[in-house]
Amino acid sequence: MSRRVERLAIIGLGLIGSSIARAVKERLPDVMVTGHDASADVRDIAQTLGLCDAVIDDAAGAVADADLVILAVPVGGMAAAASAMAPGLGKDTIISDVGSSKASVAEALGHALPGHIVIPAHPVAGTENSGPAAGFASLFDGRWCIVTPDAAAPADAVAALTEFWEALGAKVDVMDAAHHDMVLAVTSHLPHLIAYTIVGTASELEEVTESEVIKYSAGGFRDFTRIAASDPVMWRDVFLANKDAVLATLQRFNEDLTVLQQAIRRGDADKLEDWFTRTRAIRRSIIAEGQDDPAPDFGRKH
Amino acid sequence: MSRRVERLAIIGLGLIGSSIARAVKERLPDVMVTGHDASADVRDIAQTLGLCDAVIDDAAGAVADADLVILAVPVGGMAAAASAMAPGLGKDTIISDVGSSKASVAEALGHALPGHIVIPAHPVAGTENSGPAAGFASLFDGRWCIVTPDAAAPADAVAALTEFWEALGAKVDVMDAAHHDMVLAVTSHLPHLIAYTIVGTASELEEVTESEVIKYSAGGFRDFTRIAASDPVMWRDVFLANKDAVLATLQRFNEDLTVLQQAIRRGDADKLEDWFTRTRAIRRSIIAEGQDDPAPDFGRKH
Ligand SMILES: NC(=O)c1ccc[n+]([C@@H]2O[C@H](COP(=O)([O-])OP(=O)(O)OC[C@H]3O[C@@H](n4cnc5c(N)ncnc54)[C@H](OP(=O)(O)O)[C@@H]3O)[C@@H](O)[C@H]2O)c1
Ligand SMILES: NC(=O)c1ccc[n+]([C@@H]2O[C@H](COP(=O)([O-])OP(=O)(O)OC[C@H]3O[C@@H](n4cnc5c(N)ncnc54)[C@H](OP(=O)(O)O)[C@@H]3O)[C@@H](O)[C@H]2O)c1
Repeated sequence: MSRRVERLAIIGLGLIGSSIARAVKERLPDVMVTGHDASADVRDIAQTLGLCDAVIDDAAGAVADADLVILAVPVGGMAAAASAMAPGLGKDTIISDVGSSKASVAEALGHALPGHIVIPAHPVAGTENSGPAAGFASLFDGRWCIVTPDAAAPADAVAALTEFWEALGAKVDVMDAAHHDMVLAVTSHLPHLIAYTIVGTASELEEVTESEVIKYSAGGFRDFTRIAASDPVMWRDVFLANKDAVLATLQRFNEDLTVLQQAIRRGDADKLEDWFTRTRAIRRSIIAEGQDDPAPDFGRKH
Repeated sequence: MSRRVERLAIIGLGLIGSSIARAVKERLPDVMVTGHDASADVRDIAQTLGLCDAVIDDAAGAVADADLVILAVPVGGMAAAASAMAPGLGKDTIISDVGSSKASVAEALGHALPGHIVIPAHPVAGTENSGPAAGFASLFDGRWCIVTPDAAAPADAVAALTEFWEALGAKVDVMDAAHHDMVLAVTSHLPHLIAYTIVGTASELEEVTESEVIKYSAGGFRDFTRIAASDPVMWRDVFLANKDAVLATLQRFNEDLTVLQQAIRRGDADKLEDWFTRTRAIRRSIIAEGQDDPAPDFGRKH
């Protein structure tokens, strides 16, 4: 039997949920989409924007008859969202999510939905904005979506989920949840933690006013403020959910920072120049692989 | 007597020097520009691109008759560049620079050019690229240029330099060199140091391959790779020249990072959410002040 998604339910209609809805409307127009969000305001906006074929007030009602349910709520809210919809779920429905950490989400969904087909996933795409108005259909274009099925996941369900994400413009990789969490700790969670830290540091110095920090931010600081403007609840949850990998990666970062700190203190010019020369190469590879804009300064009109 | 720049000499025709040349051609077409670079290749490119009215092989020849000389070489090369041009300098010529640190540059220029009018400056504008082909005329539009005259600097010379930068589209602030160095340590040098560190960390983990880091970089990491692709020699020099302020700022960053690390380890959700909520505000101010692109994700076509 080969599966195909014909009826999709999205739980959580924020940046990611609404982007999925928009992308489906554009690229999979035959798929029927129902949506639900815990917030009545968000449901109203979703209704007004016409994001879904139907916006449903209760989670269980939203998922009835769905082939695929995607949970697009903060990772700390996955268990509650799963429990709320559980009464409406069919036994054959594929349940997936878009959470930024995977091992803890897989565990939470497994507990909340025993006997169901759960296949966690994470599209590595986003912006610093959140909410239903922030989404857009092309968000997943050329980005990777990481799918983390466990051994029990039916192959045809994994194939259907893969096909779904590919139809939305994403490239799909399969890996285990623990490895996902280590990889994303490096490529996403640590960068966010560092950005949140430095923006906090800069705004609390006595020697430099906040007005000065803002005026002269084009020297590099402004880049960090974009990431540090990301949703506080989403990121609180990510750090708590992926604690071990984040702390392990942070320790490596701290070691490296100490090495560079010492090189500066000692005036070790060669060590600094060598380090900075090595790091230059990686950006070229990112651009070559289509994972960033090749234009200088991200092509922004500054 | 009021001064006006009619003859400009630029020493160092890389990103910043060539951007000044382009901006002058566009906005101050009556100003005669001579240029010099230590590298014969760069001089050839400058010649081919028609960046200056004349590209001169020796520094002393390039500055003869100039009203204003701008040194646009790495901060570690300021003393050598100043000594090389010294024999050609008139006593009335204003000597300025664009170096990213100011106290050590002021000292170096003061030693190399006794009795001359030295007024250091720093346009807070740039990209991750370097060299004469990377420059563009609008680089300084709406950006701040910080001028750091000492007590001996003639007021009319400071006014002429201010007027010059304003003609190039910049807004000008005057402050003392030590304060500049503390402010820029926060808004530019520390962000670069952190970005260089994290890109180094990510590329040396055993658990995560470089290919994975590149593929999933859209989760946030790619932002840091832009800054970490900046010129290694320029940045080596900046960290050595502004060592004290950089290390002082780094210490504050480390304290804050330790606080967040502990909050994650202890699962202190409130502390994390509070912190992330505070940092969100600063981006709005940066955008409101025209110091960054308001579009999500810097407006990049990802
Ligand atoms: N933002 C990114 O860049 C990005 C990228 C990849 C993956 N992700 C992941 O995608 C998920 C959603 O993030 P997002 O950026 O789309 O967040 P968002 O814009 O804040 O949207 C989340 C929505 O879910 C709602 N919600 C919360 N708990 C719920 C529940 N139990 N049942 C139903 N709805 C609930 C929220 O309502 P309230 O506002 O009332 O709480 C909100 O409308 C997160 O797990 C995140 O880790 C995010
Ligand atoms: N890049 C930025 O974002 C930025 C922003 C604001 C300020 N700044 C400051 O601007 C200055 C120039 O940076 P940049 O980005 O324009 O660097 P760049 O593109 O590398 O250009 C510097 C040029 O100066 C030449 N040079 C080096 N030593 C010289 C000497 N003694 N005499 C004459 N020419 C010499 C270099 O030649 P070789 O290639 O042969 O060494 C190179 O062509 C630095 O002090 C930097 O701190 C940079």
